[in-house]
Order: sequence, then structure tokens, then C-alpha cells
Amino acid sequence: MFSKEEKEAIYKVIETRRDVRSFNQDSVSMDAVNRILEAAHHAPSVGFMQPWNFILVESDEIKQKLAWAADKERRALAIHYEEDERASKFLSLKIEGLKEAPLTICVTCDPTRGGSHVLGRNSIPETDMMSTACAIQNMWLASCVEGLAMGWVSFYKKADVRDILGIPPHIDPVALISIGYTDDYPKAPILESAKWEKRRSLEKLIYKELWGSS
Amino acid sequence: MFSKEEKEAIYKVIETRRDVRSFNQDSVSMDAVNRILEAAHHAPSVGFMQPWNFILVESDEIKQKLAWAADKERRALAIHYEEDERASKFLSLKIEGLKEAPLTICVTCDPTRGGSHVLGRNSIPETDMMSTACAIQNMWLASCVEGLAMGWVSFYKKADVRDILGIPPHIDPVALISIGYTDDYPKAPILESAKWEKRRSLEKLIYKELWGSS
Repeated sequence: MFSKEEKEAIYKVIETRRDVRSFNQDSVSMDAVNRILEAAHHAPSVGFMQPWNFILVESDEIKQKLAWAADKERRALAIHYEEDERASKFLSLKIEGLKEAPLTICVTCDPTRGGSHVLGRNSIPETDMMSTACAIQNMWLASCVEGLAMGWVSFYKKADVRDILGIPPHIDPVALISIGYTDDYPKAPILESAKWEKRRSLEKLIYKELWGSS
Repeated sequence: MFSKEEKEAIYKVIETRRDVRSFNQDSVSMDAVNRILEAAHHAPSVGFMQPWNFILVESDEIKQKLAWAADKERRALAIHYEEDERASKFLSLKIEGLKEAPLTICVTCDPTRGGSHVLGRNSIPETDMMSTACAIQNMWLASCVEGLAMGWVSFYKKADVRDILGIPPHIDPVALISIGYTDDYPKAPILESAKWEKRRSLEKLIYKELWGSS
């Protein structure tokens, strides 16, 4: 069903995809964005509930407000990181990315979609959010093959983002995604290049039959 | 960076991938499984925390126990679905799949990995689970290009799965994944073919600038 070349293409994009924090000003092709959203919409979802929505933000005014919300949270987090200026620096790069990128997409999750008893969701309610994460991963892979750069901002108070984008209280704004082009697509994860964290040995993460057995 | 053919391959796998509930007895190539897990391990994760582990279960005895846990939950859920026998039937297919598939992978999420203040995780703690979901989506796409079938079982009591697989209390068993070959790879989502739920119009899920604006 898939040729050797197709197989290689999949592994190539999975390994090439990076979280990007720096964008140039080239405007984004809306055809590409539509293909990326179509990819998101083809993600699996528990009980086929398709809990996602996508708010496309191109207005500078709204992007500035979102950047303000993330920066407020960065400043609050900086207090918890205490002496660690590097942590606060890493987060501030994301905020710059949010301002620079021509397009921000707020991805939301509606836990009520599909009714009260979505098939297979009842026992693990967070599967709706995991479905939405699968959609975001599809967006990421699609962005990468489109030559687009994507960054995921995950620090803000959800109430602020709801206020800024007019999102109802029962809807969960799970991610702010920056989309644009970059002059410098990272070859390795930025936190790895900066020696903040390294890729773990996969072998040590795999167990056989029981937790802890190899 | 990506050729037209490579781009098409990505969209092809994203659209072809299905949740599979019926497996034959062909044994699974461990080389393919290793490539699938490598794909999972190349998922993005908040603060590069890589919170995942993979427990590979091939023992019939343990698979039967996991199927028992899921079946117990299916019977409990059936009470909530009340008259709706079809719902309980859909879930029972998954349990059959869990018994049939030569390999079950329990994917877990360790919320403590990377320490108390993982970069960017502090404000939205569930980002660790979303990272794990991205890894599962990579596994799904990789399985699909490998010609393997994959099914995600999301109904069980986590305490039962922890007991069966010896998982520590702070580790979250987020998914039971069935992996094997199938004689009948679904062309459309099973819940769509069965007219349980249909694919929503993507257009209606996209807003511009603010929630609700198109």
C-alpha cells in the first residue's frame, strides 16, 4: 500500500519536524494552511467526536494581546524558575515568535461535542484533549512538508486567551500555534542544541511485558 | 526540502490511517515495531521532557488480563448507555482486537519526568499528556506506512492496568494500543461506516480572528 519512498518520506518528516521560535515576514500561503487544517481534521478522535476548532488570527492587534497574555505568564513563571534566567529566556523566544509569525492558530477542544456519552470517552475524559493533540501533531507534520515553520506556545492563563478570543467558558484553548516561514529551521530540538535537555535513550524507555522489565 | 512526492506521501498516510479493531494472527516484525517506537520517540514534548514509556505485551496471559479489564469497563459503561446495544457492541469489538492482535503496547506518561518545573509545562500541566498523544499519533502514522494495523483502546480503569502491568501509582497508563496485521483495513472510520457519527464540515470548525466569526 505504501512504497519504500513513501515510507521513507514519513520517517523523514517525523524526524525533521521541529518546534520553531523565529519567523521571517513572508506571508503564509492560505492553500497550504487549508491543507494543514485538513490534515488536523483527519486525526483520530475518541468516538469520532472531532472536538477541535481552529481560530486563525492574522490581526496584529489580537496577536499583540495574545503575546501580552503569554508574556504575563512568562513573568509569573520566572518567579518560580528563580535564579534561572535561561528558562525565562527560552520562553521569551516563543513570545517573540508569536509576534513575528504572520499567522497564529488557537486550537481548542470542546469536551461537550458529541453529547454526554461519547463512545469510549466516558472512562478517560482526557481522551478528547489527546485527540486534539493528535490533530496538532498532524498539523506539525503537514507544516513541515509544506516548508512552513510551526511553534507551539503552551504557557498562558486559559482565561486570558478566552477573553481575548471570545471563547466560551466550556471550551478549552489547548494551544497557541505560530505559523510562518523561518530562515533557520532547527536541525535539532532547540532545548537539545542549548544543552538544556537531551534526547533520552529509547531503549531504556521500552519495557517487556511488565513495567521495569527489559 | 520535501519533494512533491514526499508531500503527497504525508497527506496520503494522514488520510489513510484508521483505527483498526480486527487482526489476523500474522506475527509482527520487530524491526517494524522498533521503527514505530522510534517515530513515537521523535514526537515533540513540552520542555523536551519525553514523558513516555512503552510496555510491549506479547504474553497471552497478560493480554487476557488487559482484555478482562477493558471488558469489565465495557460492561459498566453499558449500564450508562442503557438501551443502546450498538454502543456496547462497538466497544466489544475493541476487546476482541485486544485479544487477537499479536502485540499490545501500553503507552504511559510520567508527569514527574524532567523535574518539578519542566519548561513551559507549569501553566498547562496536561501538556505532558498531549505530548504523549503526539507520540501515539506518530506511532499510528508509522504503523500505517509499515502496513500494520493499530487500534487504540481507551476504556479501562487505570488502577486495573497499573495492577496488571506493575505500573507505579504516579505513572499514567494513557493508552492500550493493539498492533498486528488485518485482512480488512477500513477505508473510512468504522463509526462513520456504521453511521454512528459523521465527519464534520471542516469549514464550520474554522473561525477567523475571534470565536464564532467566519
